[in-house]
Amino acid sequence: MSLRKKISIIGSGFTGATTAFLLAQKELCDIVLVDIPQMENPTKGKALDMFEASPVQGFDANIKGTSDYKDTEGSDIVVITAGIARKPGMSRDDLVQTNQSIMKSVTKEVVKYSPDCIIIVLSNPVDAMTYTVFKESGFAKTRVIGQSGVLDTARFRSFVAMELNLSVKDITGFVLGGHGDDMVPLIRYSYAGGIPLETLIPKHRLEEIIERTRNGGAEIVNLLGNGSAYYAPAASLADMCEAIIKNQRRVLPTVAYLDGEYGYSDIYLGVPTILGGNGIEQVIELELTEEEKTALDKSVSSVKNVLKVLT
Amino acid sequence: MSLRKKISIIGSGFTGATTAFLLAQKELCDIVLVDIPQMENPTKGKALDMFEASPVQGFDANIKGTSDYKDTEGSDIVVITAGIARKPGMSRDDLVQTNQSIMKSVTKEVVKYSPDCIIIVLSNPVDAMTYTVFKESGFAKTRVIGQSGVLDTARFRSFVAMELNLSVKDITGFVLGGHGDDMVPLIRYSYAGGIPLETLIPKHRLEEIIERTRNGGAEIVNLLGNGSAYYAPAASLADMCEAIIKNQRRVLPTVAYLDGEYGYSDIYLGVPTILGGNGIEQVIELELTEEEKTALDKSVSSVKNVLKVLT
Amino acid sequence: MSLRKKISIIGSGFTGATTAFLLAQKELCDIVLVDIPQMENPTKGKALDMFEASPVQGFDANIKGTSDYKDTEGSDIVVITAGIARKPGMSRDDLVQTNQSIMKSVTKEVVKYSPDCIIIVLSNPVDAMTYTVFKESGFAKTRVIGQSGVLDTARFRSFVAMELNLSVKDITGFVLGGHGDDMVPLIRYSYAGGIPLETLIPKHRLEEIIERTRNGGAEIVNLLGNGSAYYAPAASLADMCEAIIKNQRRVLPTVAYLDGEYGYSDIYLGVPTILGGNGIEQVIELELTEEEKTALDKSVSSVKNVLKVLT
Amino acid sequence: MSLRKKISIIGSGFTGATTAFLLAQKELCDIVLVDIPQMENPTKGKALDMFEASPVQGFDANIKGTSDYKDTEGSDIVVITAGIARKPGMSRDDLVQTNQSIMKSVTKEVVKYSPDCIIIVLSNPVDAMTYTVFKESGFAKTRVIGQSGVLDTARFRSFVAMELNLSVKDITGFVLGGHGDDMVPLIRYSYAGGIPLETLIPKHRLEEIIERTRNGGAEIVNLLGNGSAYYAPAASLADMCEAIIKNQRRVLPTVAYLDGEYGYSDIYLGVPTILGGNGIEQVIELELTEEEKTALDKSVSSVKNVLKVLT
Repeated sequence: MSLRKKISIIGSGFTGATTAFLLAQKELCDIVLVDIPQMENPTKGKALDMFEASPVQGFDANIKGTSDYKDTEGSDIVVITAGIARKPGMSRDDLVQTNQSIMKSVTKEVVKYSPDCIIIVLSNPVDAMTYTVFKESGFAKTRVIGQSGVLDTARFRSFVAMELNLSVKDITGFVLGGHGDDMVPLIRYSYAGGIPLETLIPKHRLEEIIERTRNGGAEIVNLLGNGSAYYAPAASLADMCEAIIKNQRRVLPTVAYLDGEYGYSDIYLGVPTILGGNGIEQVIELELTEEEKTALDKSVSSVKNVLKVLT
Repeated sequence: MSLRKKISIIGSGFTGATTAFLLAQKELCDIVLVDIPQMENPTKGKALDMFEASPVQGFDANIKGTSDYKDTEGSDIVVITAGIARKPGMSRDDLVQTNQSIMKSVTKEVVKYSPDCIIIVLSNPVDAMTYTVFKESGFAKTRVIGQSGVLDTARFRSFVAMELNLSVKDITGFVLGGHGDDMVPLIRYSYAGGIPLETLIPKHRLEEIIERTRNGGAEIVNLLGNGSAYYAPAASLADMCEAIIKNQRRVLPTVAYLDGEYGYSDIYLGVPTILGGNGIEQVIELELTEEEKTALDKSVSSVKNVLKVLT
Repeated sequence: MSLRKKISIIGSGFTGATTAFLLAQKELCDIVLVDIPQMENPTKGKALDMFEASPVQGFDANIKGTSDYKDTEGSDIVVITAGIARKPGMSRDDLVQTNQSIMKSVTKEVVKYSPDCIIIVLSNPVDAMTYTVFKESGFAKTRVIGQSGVLDTARFRSFVAMELNLSVKDITGFVLGGHGDDMVPLIRYSYAGGIPLETLIPKHRLEEIIERTRNGGAEIVNLLGNGSAYYAPAASLADMCEAIIKNQRRVLPTVAYLDGEYGYSDIYLGVPTILGGNGIEQVIELELTEEEKTALDKSVSSVKNVLKVLT
Repeated sequence: MSLRKKISIIGSGFTGATTAFLLAQKELCDIVLVDIPQMENPTKGKALDMFEASPVQGFDANIKGTSDYKDTEGSDIVVITAGIARKPGMSRDDLVQTNQSIMKSVTKEVVKYSPDCIIIVLSNPVDAMTYTVFKESGFAKTRVIGQSGVLDTARFRSFVAMELNLSVKDITGFVLGGHGDDMVPLIRYSYAGGIPLETLIPKHRLEEIIERTRNGGAEIVNLLGNGSAYYAPAASLADMCEAIIKNQRRVLPTVAYLDGEYGYSDIYLGVPTILGGNGIEQVIELELTEEEKTALDKSVSSVKNVLKVLT
């Protein structure tokens, strides 16, 4: 059998594979997991192992592992997780240019087989890579989206839930700007059960939690020793896919193309958006305080510095 | 917050970690993921990454990574996934004895902190390792259970669903005996929508599917190139845990201690059982055909040969 | 927001309303609940009440109550639960003709606004009413389907689970023929964990369970005193809708048009089918024993007697 | 089989029955649905119909209908939905006293068989009825809880989601005080995706939405013509039960006993609370604006006026 929707995931590493599995559990779509020819067998192996879990977990979804982009034909969404991680001795610029080159070749294939799809980019640095895919694809800005804020707020919410010993279900967070170091948290829009966190957590503890969130990716990298986080990133990607496939019109922070919003143009930046069947249905503009605006300017400079490295 | 039930998983490799994640999604229990001191940080990293997925996936569950068995205290279930895989040049006997020794030391710690728990063993060779844990623990036979049949039938069901292009939900399979090569499939008890498979699939194709099932683990190992299956094994473990925690009294094939059933004694073997709040609530005895009995005898011999290697 | 698929339910009584709610929980589709103009307000009330449950239950689905068939436009599936129940003093023929007339007028409206939909009929007597809708719609036989076997087997499975004190998840049942009195149970295709029920339950108890299943609807009617069952019928309808929307190709017993299968023609009868994205993708023909064939003939005669009453 | 937790629901009307069904779907507990002896058969009928849905919906839970409180023995939670609705010509005081008398007799039976349970009260007027149950039970204040705010905010969230055409998942609301007319909405603590609603919806529309929420129960009553809302109330009760059974420590508005909090004593009032395994684990005190405090005072007066009617 074949579900009516199709999502392809480029890159069958831990994040890509886990995203495939989380999507399969949701019975949203058929799934194609793609990697380079040298990784074809492991990719097939992961896809088969997931499918073999389906009778026990009780979900119906085709999961195909492949190295042939033809198999992605007609995808509704393509998620790009491909790209390399920074290696010892590698300059940031080398990393950016290597991943840019990967984005370009991946995007060509994606567009060729799924000219009407929506693309979600996870690859790092996400703001520059989403920008690259946008330019290369020629797609409308609403159909090329980066992931960073869903993950950043998930980490923030986790740390707050630990701090207050409360259900994660009732904690919300809010971030703007770039990923990681460039993240601009809007604490005044962050709550436990609707109650502003500022009234529940002392300022210095909140600052520690924000700092921990900024370094959330590095914290996991350091603990694992080898490799980086994949459960929470995959959950974030699956959530965004669900919002699109089900046309949920969710209010989620995404890396969106700005065309004057917040005073910036021709840049991909983390902002609150409405995510639905058409991709980014709206960028939500908020009034910022002086301080927030300054932080966001800094974040934008940082992103622009990376964009300059693009060839 | 802390859920009312607690499951500890020994071994934070891919199967152990994935089992933890699947259990967390079910909001069944709090989860403790344990590994050796050298793996403490990666174990903590995986647990934290999973917890950070919880706000997005919408589940509430504590997940703790640790190398200290004290953290497993008072577990309702302990799942043992620890043990090494066979390395090139290693004899089967060396593998058995190494894993036996791991089982013994793990069991000591498990029993010390959770004297009333139910233990589920995945480690290979599963029949001998479950036997080892049973002897070492001093637990009642109902409280020490091995996993093999849920996974074997999951693979079989997957292959049949592919063959007939039908939902995995409506395919069932039935196996007896040891894991892998020693598996004794009962095709006459295997169905699609209740219809015996023998009437739906030609004999030679069914035999190919059985053969593929027997080699199901090796197929994934060969594809991955490095490492073995973990999605389907983890799903199988999580399913067994759920049956126990919710006292579902499910009819599932498990590796159970036989005390005269099917004519065998003092052996752990794959048989149909009722799995509920007390662990194995009943071994279901079926009348076997001559042919089935012969195959099961062979399987038992094979298991006994491994048991002889135990020190 | 609006989901990508749409299911309309004709008749906002307890079964229709509960079906709407179960579909909403599954986030499969937007839902339109339709009733006659005199019932417009209660229908709107139920739909609104359900929608107000959605923030708490965590599902996203539009649910609209209406008496205007225009709102059903472009439905993927239309479920017909309309029709009256037999009243004291009413002859069976009167009931059949009244419901036939309701089916005809409902079908006209359904076809007008959703010419490409799949229709599922619950209204009683289901075999004759499905036949009526088929003829009136002019649809292909694959796109007009009656519900009876999913419910009958659900009841059978429930009674067996009670009898054996086992999880309902592992019990299966199998029926052919008409609904209720005309049901032809195939016990040899009914299992607990794959094990034939005949080996687990004494013959006389099995016969009592079959008899209770036959009278399953009446048992609930008698207990309620006023009205008839709706939870299990609604669950059955929702399951069939899910199989179609997700193209699951499930093996489910449905009331299907026979065109020579089992030796019968131009009749709707309960048979095992593959239910998927195109509706009934296949009628599965089984070899029957003499006894089963005789019982099925009797069931067919009974259905034909009702068909004769159609005007 | 029997799950490890047990919830009894007193009153098998639509709200009670729907609560039972939603709990069964969650596989949280076994369920006992209780009504008066004259309603014993319909109660059994509903319970059986629900159980017959379980094989199709795929949940395992015992659901028992009864008129014998002995069957509630050892419940972890008891939900009281019993009580009459106001009839034409009936004074409010008559209603209060009739339901008070029902609460007293129900509570005696509940306490007799489940001395350690947590009680959740839905019966109207909920503040006074929860107070009655508290006094009659002799239970600690943490173990007697009323439902109103989960439902009120669910309705508010629904109306806001409609207004903004956004997913209900991202809308939150916040209320204090009594139910319905006496509700004190805290709009400044109500958000869409974390963004204060005041910045997204014009003031006059927000006021209309608040007014509609206040009259949310009456709106459904008027539409139905006969009877009152039950889907959203049942969802609210099931959510509270889940928070307790799973010890989730959720931040939910409940009707809690105040012992000085917010400056009030010896009264049950809607306030934000932490709901977990011990029942109300904490009443969260917020700083109120002058205006909010005045509205809350008015709400308290209104509740006290009802309490005066208690005998």
